[in-house]
Amino acid sequence: MTTPGGRRVGRPRAVERAGKGADPRGELLGAAAELFTVKGYAATSTRAVAERAGMRQATMYHYVSGKEELLAELLESTVAPSLACARTLLTEDGRGARERLWELCRADVEVLCGGTYNLGGLYLLPEVRGERFAGFRTARDELKAAYRELVAGATSLEGGELDLRTDLVFGLIEGVILIHRSDPTRPVSEFARATADAALRIAGV
Amino acid sequence: MTTPGGRRVGRPRAVERAGKGADPRGELLGAAAELFTVKGYAATSTRAVAERAGMRQATMYHYVSGKEELLAELLESTVAPSLACARTLLTEDGRGARERLWELCRADVEVLCGGTYNLGGLYLLPEVRGERFAGFRTARDELKAAYRELVAGATSLEGGELDLRTDLVFGLIEGVILIHRSDPTRPVSEFARATADAALRIAGV
Repeated sequence: MTTPGGRRVGRPRAVERAGKGADPRGELLGAAAELFTVKGYAATSTRAVAERAGMRQATMYHYVSGKEELLAELLESTVAPSLACARTLLTEDGRGARERLWELCRADVEVLCGGTYNLGGLYLLPEVRGERFAGFRTARDELKAAYRELVAGATSLEGGELDLRTDLVFGLIEGVILIHRSDPTRPVSEFARATADAALRIAGV
Repeated sequence: MTTPGGRRVGRPRAVERAGKGADPRGELLGAAAELFTVKGYAATSTRAVAERAGMRQATMYHYVSGKEELLAELLESTVAPSLACARTLLTEDGRGARERLWELCRADVEVLCGGTYNLGGLYLLPEVRGERFAGFRTARDELKAAYRELVAGATSLEGGELDLRTDLVFGLIEGVILIHRSDPTRPVSEFARATADAALRIAGV
Protein backbone atom coordinates (compact mmCIF):
# COMPACT_ATOMS: atom_id res chain seq x y z
CA MET A 1 0.00 0.00 0.00
CA THR A 2 1.26 3.46 -0.86
CA THR A 3 -0.07 6.73 0.55
CA PRO A 4 -0.78 9.70 -1.75
CA GLY A 5 2.48 11.19 -0.51
CA GLY A 6 4.34 8.17 -1.82
CA ARG A 7 5.26 6.66 1.53
CA ARG A 8 4.81 2.94 1.84
CA VAL A 9 2.81 1.87 4.85
CA GLY A 10 1.54 -1.40 6.21
CA ARG A 11 4.65 -3.38 5.28
CA PRO A 12 5.81 -6.10 7.66
CA ARG A 13 8.56 -3.85 8.92
CA ALA A 14 9.27 -5.88 12.03
CA VAL A 15 10.95 -8.48 9.85
CA GLU A 16 12.86 -5.98 7.78
CA ARG A 17 14.07 -4.08 10.79
CA ALA A 18 15.18 -7.06 12.86
CA GLY A 19 18.95 -7.26 13.09
CA LYS A 20 19.48 -3.77 11.70
CA GLY A 21 21.16 -2.84 14.96
CA ALA A 22 19.45 0.57 15.22
CA ASP A 23 18.89 2.19 18.61
CA PRO A 24 15.88 0.30 20.04
CA ARG A 25 14.30 3.38 21.58
CA GLY A 26 14.61 5.20 18.25
CA GLU A 27 13.04 2.21 16.49
CA LEU A 28 10.12 2.31 18.92
CA LEU A 29 9.64 6.05 18.42
CA GLY A 30 9.69 5.61 14.64
CA ALA A 31 7.19 2.77 14.80
CA ALA A 32 4.94 4.78 17.13
CA ALA A 33 5.12 7.85 14.86
CA GLU A 34 3.99 5.75 11.91
CA LEU A 35 1.18 3.92 13.70
CA PHE A 36 -0.14 6.91 15.67
CA THR A 37 -0.41 9.05 12.54
CA VAL A 38 -1.55 6.37 10.08
CA LYS A 39 -3.86 4.27 12.27
CA GLY A 40 -4.53 6.70 15.12
CA TYR A 41 -3.30 6.81 18.72
CA ALA A 42 -6.19 5.11 20.47
CA ALA A 43 -6.37 2.38 17.82
CA THR A 44 -2.68 1.51 18.24
CA SER A 45 -1.73 -1.09 20.85
CA THR A 46 1.65 -1.24 22.56
CA ARG A 47 1.94 -4.72 21.06
CA ALA A 48 1.54 -3.31 17.54
CA VAL A 49 4.26 -0.73 18.23
CA ALA A 50 6.62 -3.40 19.53
CA GLU A 51 5.99 -5.65 16.54
CA ARG A 52 6.49 -2.82 14.07
CA ALA A 53 9.79 -2.05 15.76
CA GLY A 54 10.80 -5.69 15.44
CA MET A 55 10.73 -6.66 19.09
CA ARG A 56 8.51 -8.44 21.57
CA GLN A 57 6.10 -6.46 23.72
CA ALA A 58 7.92 -7.52 26.90
CA THR A 59 11.24 -6.28 25.46
CA MET A 60 9.68 -2.92 24.66
CA TYR A 61 9.13 -2.24 28.34
CA HIS A 62 12.89 -2.26 28.89
CA TYR A 63 13.04 0.92 26.85
CA VAL A 64 9.78 2.79 27.41
CA SER A 65 7.01 2.75 30.00
CA GLY A 66 4.24 2.59 27.40
CA LYS A 67 2.24 4.39 24.75
CA GLU A 68 1.93 7.66 26.67
CA GLU A 69 5.68 8.02 27.01
CA LEU A 70 6.10 7.47 23.26
CA LEU A 71 3.44 10.06 22.46
CA ALA A 72 4.88 12.57 24.92
CA GLU A 73 8.36 12.19 23.44
CA LEU A 74 7.09 12.50 19.88
CA LEU A 75 5.18 15.66 20.76
CA GLU A 76 8.19 17.13 22.55
CA SER A 77 10.30 16.39 19.47
CA THR A 78 8.05 18.74 17.46
CA VAL A 79 8.69 21.62 19.88
CA ALA A 80 12.21 21.15 21.26
CA PRO A 81 14.19 22.21 18.14
CA SER A 82 12.01 25.31 17.62
CA LEU A 83 12.31 26.22 21.28
CA ALA A 84 16.11 25.95 21.13
CA CYS A 85 16.06 28.17 18.05
CA ALA A 86 13.76 30.68 19.80
CA ARG A 87 16.02 30.90 22.85
CA THR A 88 19.01 31.68 20.64
CA LEU A 89 17.09 34.25 18.60
CA LEU A 90 15.85 36.06 21.73
CA THR A 91 19.44 36.77 22.77
CA GLU A 92 20.54 38.06 19.35
CA ASP A 93 20.09 41.75 19.98
CA GLY A 94 22.13 42.59 16.91
CA ARG A 95 19.38 41.51 14.51
CA GLY A 96 16.05 43.28 14.32
CA ALA A 97 12.98 41.65 15.89
CA ARG A 98 11.29 41.50 12.49
CA GLU A 99 14.09 39.44 10.98
CA ARG A 100 14.28 37.17 14.03
CA LEU A 101 10.51 36.61 14.01
CA TRP A 102 10.72 35.62 10.34
CA GLU A 103 13.54 33.19 11.10
CA LEU A 104 11.66 31.60 14.00
CA CYS A 105 8.58 31.08 11.80
CA ARG A 106 10.66 29.58 9.01
CA ALA A 107 12.57 27.24 11.31
CA ASP A 108 9.40 26.15 13.12
CA VAL A 109 7.64 25.23 9.87
CA GLU A 110 10.68 23.24 8.79
CA VAL A 111 10.43 21.24 12.03
CA LEU A 112 6.67 20.75 11.82
CA CYS A 113 6.70 19.67 8.15
CA GLY A 114 10.15 18.13 7.98
CA GLY A 115 9.54 14.70 9.46
CA THR A 116 8.32 11.59 7.70
CA TYR A 117 5.05 11.67 9.62
CA ASN A 118 2.73 14.55 10.36
CA LEU A 119 3.18 14.56 14.12
CA GLY A 120 1.55 17.96 14.45
CA GLY A 121 -1.81 16.26 14.07
CA LEU A 122 -1.20 14.59 17.42
CA TYR A 123 -1.45 17.99 19.17
CA LEU A 124 -5.22 17.75 19.02
CA LEU A 125 -5.59 14.39 20.76
CA PRO A 126 -7.74 14.68 23.88
CA GLU A 127 -5.13 12.58 25.70
CA VAL A 128 -2.65 15.49 25.46
CA ARG A 129 -4.58 17.32 28.18
CA GLY A 130 -3.31 14.76 30.71
CA GLU A 131 -0.59 15.21 33.34
CA ARG A 132 1.89 13.07 31.40
CA PHE A 133 2.06 15.80 28.74
CA ALA A 134 2.78 18.72 31.06
CA GLY A 135 6.36 18.87 29.74
CA PHE A 136 5.17 19.23 26.17
CA ARG A 137 2.63 21.88 27.10
CA THR A 138 5.21 23.86 29.10
CA ALA A 139 7.67 23.81 26.18
CA ARG A 140 4.92 24.87 23.78
CA ASP A 141 3.92 27.72 26.14
CA GLU A 142 7.53 28.91 26.30
CA LEU A 143 7.76 28.80 22.50
CA LYS A 144 4.59 30.84 22.19
CA ALA A 145 5.94 33.38 24.70
CA ALA A 146 9.02 33.75 22.48
CA TYR A 147 6.76 34.44 19.48
CA ARG A 148 4.95 37.05 21.57
CA GLU A 149 8.19 38.77 22.55
CA LEU A 150 9.35 38.94 18.94
CA VAL A 151 5.94 40.18 17.70
CA ALA A 152 6.06 42.85 20.43
CA GLY A 153 9.58 43.83 19.39
CA ALA A 154 8.69 44.04 15.71
CA THR A 155 5.48 46.06 16.22
CA SER A 156 4.11 48.61 18.63
CA LEU A 157 1.33 46.27 19.77
CA GLU A 158 0.60 45.54 23.41
CA GLY A 159 -2.03 43.96 25.68
CA GLY A 160 -4.98 42.18 24.13
CA GLU A 161 -4.07 43.23 20.59
CA LEU A 162 -0.56 41.78 21.01
CA ASP A 163 -2.05 38.53 22.35
CA LEU A 164 -4.44 38.31 19.41
CA ARG A 165 -1.75 38.91 16.79
CA THR A 166 0.53 36.41 18.50
CA ASP A 167 -2.27 33.83 18.53
CA LEU A 168 -2.88 34.40 14.80
CA VAL A 169 0.81 34.09 13.93
CA PHE A 170 1.25 31.01 16.12
CA GLY A 171 -2.00 29.56 14.75
CA LEU A 172 -0.80 29.97 11.18
CA ILE A 173 2.47 28.21 11.99
CA GLU A 174 0.82 25.29 13.77
CA GLY A 175 -1.88 25.28 11.10
CA VAL A 176 0.74 24.30 8.53
CA ILE A 177 0.06 20.81 9.78
CA LEU A 178 -3.25 20.98 7.94
CA ILE A 179 -1.85 22.74 4.87
CA HIS A 180 1.10 20.41 4.42
CA ARG A 181 -1.27 17.41 4.39
CA SER A 182 -3.04 18.87 1.36
CA ASP A 183 0.13 18.98 -0.74
CA PRO A 184 2.97 16.96 0.83
CA THR A 185 4.99 17.17 -2.40
CA ARG A 186 5.63 20.92 -2.08
CA PRO A 187 9.28 21.50 -1.09
CA VAL A 188 9.39 22.19 2.65
CA SER A 189 12.05 24.92 2.52
CA GLU A 190 10.11 26.96 -0.04
CA PHE A 191 6.87 26.44 1.86
CA ALA A 192 8.57 27.44 5.14
CA ARG A 193 9.78 30.74 3.67
CA ALA A 194 6.37 31.54 2.19
CA THR A 195 4.71 30.82 5.54
CA ALA A 196 7.20 33.06 7.36
CA ASP A 197 6.38 35.86 4.87
CA ALA A 198 2.67 35.33 5.55
CA ALA A 199 3.26 35.36 9.32
CA LEU A 200 4.97 38.76 9.10
CA ARG A 201 2.02 40.09 7.12
CA ILE A 202 -0.33 38.87 9.86
CA ALA A 203 1.84 40.45 12.55
CA GLY A 204 1.56 43.66 10.56
CA VAL A 205 5.25 44.29 9.96
CA MET B 1 -15.72 18.41 36.44
CA THR B 2 -15.34 21.69 34.61
CA THR B 3 -13.04 22.37 31.65
CA PRO B 4 -10.82 25.48 31.53
CA GLY B 5 -13.40 26.99 29.18
CA GLY B 6 -16.07 26.59 31.82
CA ARG B 7 -18.02 23.79 30.13
CA ARG B 8 -19.14 21.01 32.38
CA VAL B 9 -18.22 17.56 31.17
CA GLY B 10 -18.59 14.08 32.48
CA ARG B 11 -22.03 14.67 33.95
CA PRO B 12 -24.55 11.83 33.83
CA ARG B 13 -26.40 13.51 31.00
CA ALA B 14 -28.31 10.42 29.96
CA VAL B 15 -30.49 10.82 33.00
CA GLU B 16 -30.93 14.55 32.59
CA ARG B 17 -31.75 14.25 28.92
CA ALA B 18 -34.23 11.39 29.21
CA GLY B 19 -37.77 12.56 28.60
CA LYS B 20 -36.73 15.96 27.26
CA GLY B 21 -38.45 15.09 24.01
CA ALA B 22 -35.63 16.43 21.81
CA ASP B 23 -35.03 14.99 18.34
CA PRO B 24 -33.31 11.62 19.00
CA ARG B 25 -30.91 11.98 16.09
CA GLY B 26 -29.93 15.46 17.30
CA GLU B 27 -29.42 14.09 20.81
CA LEU B 28 -27.12 11.39 19.41
CA LEU B 29 -25.12 13.94 17.42
CA GLY B 30 -24.75 16.16 20.48
CA ALA B 31 -23.63 13.24 22.62
CA ALA B 32 -21.17 12.12 19.92
CA ALA B 33 -19.76 15.65 19.56
CA GLU B 34 -19.11 15.79 23.29
CA LEU B 35 -17.57 12.34 23.62
CA PHE B 36 -15.50 12.46 20.40
CA THR B 37 -13.93 15.79 21.36
CA VAL B 38 -13.54 15.22 25.10
CA LYS B 39 -12.64 11.53 25.23
CA GLY B 40 -11.52 10.94 21.64
CA TYR B 41 -13.17 9.16 18.72
CA ALA B 42 -11.47 5.77 18.99
CA ALA B 43 -11.97 5.68 22.76
CA THR B 44 -15.73 6.29 22.44
CA SER B 45 -18.03 3.28 22.08
CA THR B 46 -21.42 3.38 20.40
CA ARG B 47 -22.81 2.25 23.72
CA ALA B 48 -21.32 5.30 25.47
CA VAL B 49 -22.89 7.57 22.83
CA ALA B 50 -26.28 5.93 23.25
CA GLU B 51 -26.13 6.19 27.04
CA ARG B 52 -25.08 9.84 26.94
CA ALA B 53 -28.03 10.52 24.66
CA GLY B 54 -30.33 8.78 27.12
CA MET B 55 -31.23 5.73 25.07
CA ARG B 56 -30.30 2.09 24.76
CA GLN B 57 -27.68 1.00 22.25
CA ALA B 58 -30.25 -1.04 20.31
CA THR B 59 -32.55 1.99 20.04
CA MET B 60 -29.67 4.08 18.67
CA TYR B 61 -29.51 1.87 15.59
CA HIS B 62 -33.01 2.98 14.62
CA TYR B 63 -31.56 6.42 14.01
CA VAL B 64 -27.95 5.98 12.89
CA SER B 65 -25.86 3.17 11.44
CA GLY B 66 -23.01 3.70 13.92
CA LYS B 67 -20.08 5.82 14.98
CA GLU B 68 -18.81 6.54 11.46
CA GLU B 69 -22.13 8.03 10.40
CA LEU B 70 -22.13 10.28 13.46
CA LEU B 71 -18.57 11.44 12.78
CA ALA B 72 -19.28 12.02 9.08
CA GLU B 73 -22.35 14.09 9.88
CA LEU B 74 -20.52 16.14 12.51
CA LEU B 75 -17.69 16.85 10.07
CA GLU B 76 -20.11 17.82 7.32
CA SER B 77 -21.83 20.18 9.75
CA THR B 78 -18.55 22.12 10.04
CA VAL B 79 -18.38 22.64 6.27
CA ALA B 80 -21.97 22.82 5.01
CA PRO B 81 -22.86 26.33 6.32
CA SER B 82 -19.59 27.81 5.01
CA LEU B 83 -20.06 26.11 1.65
CA ALA B 84 -23.59 27.52 1.35
CA CYS B 85 -22.19 30.95 2.18
CA ALA B 86 -19.40 30.53 -0.40
CA ARG B 87 -21.83 29.54 -3.17
CA THR B 88 -23.88 32.66 -2.51
CA LEU B 89 -20.81 34.91 -2.38
CA LEU B 90 -19.46 33.53 -5.68
CA THR B 91 -22.59 34.72 -7.48
CA GLU B 92 -22.54 38.22 -5.98
CA ASP B 93 -20.80 40.01 -8.79
CA GLY B 94 -21.88 43.37 -7.40
CA ARG B 95 -19.42 43.17 -4.49
CA GLY B 96 -15.67 43.13 -4.99
CA ALA B 97 -13.76 39.85 -4.59
CA ARG B 98 -11.76 41.32 -1.72
CA GLU B 99 -14.86 42.09 0.30
CA ARG B 100 -16.41 38.69 -0.50
CA LEU B 101 -13.21 36.86 0.49
CA TRP B 102 -13.23 38.72 3.81
CA GLU B 103 -16.86 37.78 4.40
CA LEU B 104 -16.22 34.09 3.61
CA CYS B 105 -13.30 34.01 6.05
CA ARG B 106 -15.34 35.68 8.77
CA ALA B 107 -18.34 33.40 8.31
CA ASP B 108 -16.18 30.27 8.18
CA VAL B 109 -14.42 31.13 11.45
CA GLU B 110 -17.81 31.73 13.08
CA VAL B 111 -18.87 28.23 12.03
CA LEU B 112 -15.62 26.58 13.12
CA CYS B 113 -15.50 28.29 16.51
CA GLY B 114 -19.20 28.79 17.11
CA GLY B 115 -20.24 25.36 18.37
CA THR B 116 -20.06 24.04 21.90
CA TYR B 117 -17.37 21.53 20.95
CA ASN B 118 -14.24 21.99 18.88
CA LEU B 119 -15.25 19.71 16.02
CA GLY B 120 -12.47 21.04 13.81
CA GLY B 121 -10.05 18.86 15.72
CA LEU B 122 -11.81 15.84 14.25
CA TYR B 123 -10.51 16.79 10.76
CA LEU B 124 -7.16 15.25 11.62
CA LEU B 125 -8.42 11.80 12.59
CA PRO B 126 -6.85 9.09 10.43
CA GLU B 127 -10.32 7.57 10.04
CA VAL B 128 -11.40 10.57 7.94
CA ARG B 129 -9.35 9.21 5.03
CA GLY B 130 -11.91 6.40 4.64
CA GLU B 131 -14.61 6.04 2.00
CA ARG B 132 -17.40 6.91 4.45
CA PHE B 133 -16.05 10.48 4.59
CA ALA B 134 -15.92 11.13 0.85
CA GLY B 135 -18.90 13.49 1.15
CA PHE B 136 -17.12 15.61 3.74
CA ARG B 137 -13.92 15.70 1.72
CA THR B 138 -15.78 16.67 -1.45
CA ALA B 139 -17.58 19.51 0.34
CA ARG B 140 -14.28 20.70 1.84
CA ASP B 141 -12.63 20.61 -1.60
CA GLU B 142 -15.46 22.68 -3.05
CA LEU B 143 -15.12 25.18 -0.21
CA LYS B 144 -11.39 25.45 -0.82
CA ALA B 145 -12.00 25.98 -4.55
CA ALA B 146 -14.31 28.89 -3.64
CA TYR B 147 -11.54 30.41 -1.53
CA ARG B 148 -9.19 30.00 -4.50
CA GLU B 149 -11.60 31.73 -6.86
CA LEU B 150 -12.02 34.67 -4.49
CA VAL B 151 -8.26 34.96 -3.85
CA ALA B 152 -7.73 34.94 -7.63
CA GLY B 153 -10.38 37.63 -8.08
CA ALA B 154 -8.91 39.82 -5.36
CA THR B 155 -5.31 39.53 -6.56
CA SER B 156 -3.41 39.05 -9.80
CA LEU B 157 -2.01 35.69 -8.65
CA GLU B 158 -2.21 32.56 -10.76
CA GLY B 159 -0.81 29.04 -10.99
CA GLY B 160 1.42 27.74 -8.19
CA GLU B 161 1.57 31.09 -6.42
CA LEU B 162 -2.24 31.25 -6.33
CA ASP B 163 -2.37 27.70 -4.96
CA LEU B 164 0.16 28.54 -2.27
CA ARG B 165 -1.62 31.71 -1.15
CA THR B 166 -4.95 29.88 -1.13
CA ASP B 167 -3.41 27.10 0.98
CA LEU B 168 -2.06 29.67 3.45
CA VAL B 169 -5.39 31.49 3.72
CA PHE B 170 -7.35 28.24 4.05
CA GLY B 171 -4.75 26.94 6.52
CA LEU B 172 -5.12 30.02 8.70
CA ILE B 173 -8.90 29.63 8.76
CA GLU B 174 -8.84 25.92 9.60
CA GLY B 175 -5.97 26.62 12.02
CA VAL B 176 -8.34 28.71 14.13
CA ILE B 177 -9.28 25.36 15.62
CA LEU B 178 -5.92 25.40 17.38
CA ILE B 179 -6.03 29.08 18.25
CA HIS B 180 -9.53 29.03 19.66
CA ARG B 181 -8.56 26.22 22.04
CA SER B 182 -5.90 28.45 23.57
CA ASP B 183 -8.41 31.13 24.57
CA PRO B 184 -12.00 29.90 24.30
CA THR B 185 -13.25 32.93 26.23
CA ARG B 186 -12.43 35.40 23.42
CA PRO B 187 -15.67 36.55 21.74
CA VAL B 188 -16.08 34.58 18.52
CA SER B 189 -17.42 37.47 16.41
CA GLU B 190 -14.45 39.71 17.25
CA PHE B 191 -12.01 36.85 16.69
CA ALA B 192 -13.67 36.00 13.35
CA ARG B 193 -13.25 39.59 12.09
CA ALA B 194 -9.61 39.74 13.19
CA THR B 195 -8.91 36.42 11.45
CA ALA B 196 -10.57 37.65 8.26
CA ASP B 197 -8.35 40.76 8.37
CA ALA B 198 -5.30 38.52 8.80
CA ALA B 199 -6.40 36.29 5.91
CA LEU B 200 -6.59 39.30 3.57
CA ARG B 201 -3.07 40.30 4.60
CA ILE B 202 -1.85 36.79 3.77
CA ALA B 203 -3.62 36.90 0.41
CA GLY B 204 -1.78 40.16 -0.18
CA VAL B 205 -4.80 42.41 -0.75
